[in-house]
Amino acid sequence: MKVNVMSDILKANDLLAKDIETLLGKKGIVAWNIMGSPGAGKTAVLERSIPMLTETHGVAVIEGDLATANDAERIARTGVQSSQINTNGACHLDAAMVRTAMETIDLDTINLLFIENVGNLVCPAGFLLGEKGRIIVSSITEGDDKPEKYPSMFSTADLVLMNKMDLVSSTDFREEYFRKGVKKLRPEADIIAVSARDGSGLREFVDWITEHSRVSP
Amino acid sequence: MKVNVMSDILKANDLLAKDIETLLGKKGIVAWNIMGSPGAGKTAVLERSIPMLTETHGVAVIEGDLATANDAERIARTGVQSSQINTNGACHLDAAMVRTAMETIDLDTINLLFIENVGNLVCPAGFLLGEKGRIIVSSITEGDDKPEKYPSMFSTADLVLMNKMDLVSSTDFREEYFRKGVKKLRPEADIIAVSARDGSGLREFVDWITEHSRVSP
Repeated sequence: MKVNVMSDILKANDLLAKDIETLLGKKGIVAWNIMGSPGAGKTAVLERSIPMLTETHGVAVIEGDLATANDAERIARTGVQSSQINTNGACHLDAAMVRTAMETIDLDTINLLFIENVGNLVCPAGFLLGEKGRIIVSSITEGDDKPEKYPSMFSTADLVLMNKMDLVSSTDFREEYFRKGVKKLRPEADIIAVSARDGSGLREFVDWITEHSRVSP
Repeated sequence: MKVNVMSDILKANDLLAKDIETLLGKKGIVAWNIMGSPGAGKTAVLERSIPMLTETHGVAVIEGDLATANDAERIARTGVQSSQINTNGACHLDAAMVRTAMETIDLDTINLLFIENVGNLVCPAGFLLGEKGRIIVSSITEGDDKPEKYPSMFSTADLVLMNKMDLVSSTDFREEYFRKGVKKLRPEADIIAVSARDGSGLREFVDWITEHSRVSP
């Protein structure tokens, strides 16, 4: 019985996600679903990258958290539109939450929408949100075995950011082991080493977003 | 409908957890539910502490992960019994999984059982596993705002370990801010700063476990 209920929820979510994708397509907006563990640096990467992205794009961010509006406030300080969703206990965003948050954003002034999911390496994987693709922010302090231990998440990623590379020399993180773990689950995923703290790699991230957010005419 | 199904699941889980608690009580075993984000250092803290704990206790560890037996293998190298649960997609352990894993452990030779939950700061909070109490391992690299952002988890903790303190000078982590965040949600929780890497604080952790694992005669 539980399985039936869950698959009904997933079906409804996928239909709604398709509607969001269609709406965004009409407006010429590309959405990215940003996922990762609590404290992996999802918001920090966006904070540091937005000033570069706004040179060429209209950007908005939807933030998903169980509680607080901390992240939407941090994003708002960069000058772009942000909207906070509080899931009140739910471990992931769903398409209905995203559609509601989109009503608070002026879609006519943007062409790039980041949807930052709840910090969680499990639950968000199963829920489409109308995104063009998925970006996982993984902190190297979490260890190099995270892909193999959280395969459902990593197997749907289009881009994986190895964040907090400024700390790498103080850890046992093996970059090649991590890269192999990602590629085994998702050969087509790109992987970029970044540090939201010292800014390294973020220009490459911005270039990746620019390259992959082109809307076909 | 979803709500009804979920509350039935929770009720069944709580009944089973109570059975586990009763069984453990009869055997004189105290169980601790170890929770935290992916890569917070839950296994590493246990690996470094077990040699100290086994001076005075019989120890076993149940490991919960979506995939791999990596963690149970790491624990087995310390010489104590370990049992791996693969949840195959589920974002938390439940009492039925723990009861099954307990069948693989010789309960007559232990008085301390660690149950390491799936790396997740949301889902495990709602599921009792027969534990005496809950320990959250939080990596300081995750940031000092995790308590307020994941209140359902931190509000049930008996002990919070601030792990990876060896990296603190390379981060913006404010220890007092983190401590206040925990205390606001759970005034009675104890908080210990540790580093599974350099071993600092682990003797204090072991003393806490010893003190709180005494079985009333």
